[in-house]
Amino acid sequence: MSTPASQQPSPQLFFQTMNAHQRTEALKTAIELEVFTAIGEGNTTAADLAKRCNASEKGIRVLCDFLTIMEMLTKQNGRYGLTLDSSVFLDKRSPAYLGTATEFLGSPLLAGSAKFMTEAVQKGGTAMQDDGTVAPDNPVWVTFARAMAPLMSLPSQLLPKLADPKADGKLKILDIAAGHGLFGIGFAQHNPQAEITALDWKAVLEVAKENAQKAGVANRYNTLEGSAFDVDFGTGYDLVLLTNFLHHFDPPTCETLLRKVHAALADGGRAVTLEFIPNDDRVTPPDSASFSMVMLLSTPSGDAYTFAELEKMFANAGFSRSTLHPLPPTMQQVVISEK
Amino acid sequence: MSTPASQQPSPQLFFQTMNAHQRTEALKTAIELEVFTAIGEGNTTAADLAKRCNASEKGIRVLCDFLTIMEMLTKQNGRYGLTLDSSVFLDKRSPAYLGTATEFLGSPLLAGSAKFMTEAVQKGGTAMQDDGTVAPDNPVWVTFARAMAPLMSLPSQLLPKLADPKADGKLKILDIAAGHGLFGIGFAQHNPQAEITALDWKAVLEVAKENAQKAGVANRYNTLEGSAFDVDFGTGYDLVLLTNFLHHFDPPTCETLLRKVHAALADGGRAVTLEFIPNDDRVTPPDSASFSMVMLLSTPSGDAYTFAELEKMFANAGFSRSTLHPLPPTMQQVVISEK
Repeated sequence: MSTPASQQPSPQLFFQTMNAHQRTEALKTAIELEVFTAIGEGNTTAADLAKRCNASEKGIRVLCDFLTIMEMLTKQNGRYGLTLDSSVFLDKRSPAYLGTATEFLGSPLLAGSAKFMTEAVQKGGTAMQDDGTVAPDNPVWVTFARAMAPLMSLPSQLLPKLADPKADGKLKILDIAAGHGLFGIGFAQHNPQAEITALDWKAVLEVAKENAQKAGVANRYNTLEGSAFDVDFGTGYDLVLLTNFLHHFDPPTCETLLRKVHAALADGGRAVTLEFIPNDDRVTPPDSASFSMVMLLSTPSGDAYTFAELEKMFANAGFSRSTLHPLPPTMQQVVISEK
Repeated sequence: MSTPASQQPSPQLFFQTMNAHQRTEALKTAIELEVFTAIGEGNTTAADLAKRCNASEKGIRVLCDFLTIMEMLTKQNGRYGLTLDSSVFLDKRSPAYLGTATEFLGSPLLAGSAKFMTEAVQKGGTAMQDDGTVAPDNPVWVTFARAMAPLMSLPSQLLPKLADPKADGKLKILDIAAGHGLFGIGFAQHNPQAEITALDWKAVLEVAKENAQKAGVANRYNTLEGSAFDVDFGTGYDLVLLTNFLHHFDPPTCETLLRKVHAALADGGRAVTLEFIPNDDRVTPPDSASFSMVMLLSTPSGDAYTFAELEKMFANAGFSRSTLHPLPPTMQQVVISEK
């Protein structure tokens, strides 16, 4: 890309961008053929990797060179190595292995929606049939719950520390669109007096219940089946969790939901929202800001909202005050809104 | 991506890479909707762009924010602007407009081949039917000749200056796989005594002949129809041009062709090869090195060859000496091989 220092125009970024899709495919192929795992096991030459991954030596060499250019591998004297990120997240033997996330992020509904970007830009929302990902009971959310859990393991441990730092009192928690359930489960593990009610589609709750069982908190884990917009939440909650949910809807729809959340909270209760929150310029930080495109492609009217926009939605729904909190090292942020 | 300074593992590069395909789609969509041209004309707000591009304001806002993150646009106080590269290469009103290149680079054969990357890595060559792009008379080369000409305009002016700096003598030139014909035409424009014979599939030569006509060199422009491996080249050439051709084949096939080239050259004649030439490490410079992946995906046995590999092929074919020359500011390099 052109730098201020060299003011000569170059088609380099154009070329790189036209071929950027190859990077996605290379990552998926390397995960599928277990290339990262094979390197972690000590297979560091193209010849050894070809044997281990059941592929051609030339194909492996070209793939691993490409992954090196992508900074997902290292190469020295013809031997490939894992980067820190690759060894932690892409070697199957690592407890933080993220390879399963490709099943959701690479699913026809998510990745395929990008093929209809022109139509989505023209329309202002997904060009996929049936409202994209927010269609009732969409099976993509079962895939999500199973595939994305590893990615949520760290934030689901960090969020309870932020929202319930003392962890020493009774806490009635509603986890809206619980998915894999990890956030509610995280609170239950963090505070032995926390009682969770997880809300999601029935098939998705089966995954959350499995995870609660595994985490040893099933006895404090209740479920509510159905749409967050239709189901009766009950009342008296100390915390309502809204993790990666509001971005699927437009502000009036969010406000309708937030009024319901407000009514379900006990006095002094709080809504805890985890989101991709861009700055007011909407182009920084890049990862949160680019999430708007994911929502444009896959939902009728979702977006990545700025803190000012979220604050306004919560105020309109009756909340007295909202505050913004980073959740390092994750790229997401937390909004805590008081009843 | 993780830097040596912050040794904390991050899934950021994984996420960015899983979504990298959206960058390709965003560029294609912006070209299709003429977003760059519209901004160049002075439409700088999402509202004005939406009207000019016949799209929704929200869709345009999300797209332009995404292009800003991609460093293809600028954004200040809610107004979008073109970068230097975008104004030169992506505004339709610019003489160096490259938008048509998306028709080749984004074609089903080129872009679509990435969908079969796993199979290509397993096999060591394209998983596309009928040998991918090197199938006889593949219509993709007519698309290439029409779509890629703007990208070749600059190198086709630079190459004659390198290979025929004095431009003051008779020069009989064979342009193998001429495509758009711009390289041969460039030599003919540069040296009024240059006579060009362009070789390619019949349908492709129609494009080259049109271009020779437009450039005013049709009276010194002859054609040879068919495969470079089958057609009789004739003899007595001072220069044989091999621009972006050898990368489609394996070294033995290249050597077979180069022996034919050697025989067609006059005493003191030279072969002039333009290529993506990676360093010996095969992972730098990134643009040339990553071209190996394009060849793995789209040809049975092509590759981006290092200078050492090219030098060896030319030596095996009887050439006495090969030298490597950069062609700045392009990302390609030139090998000049003496008979």
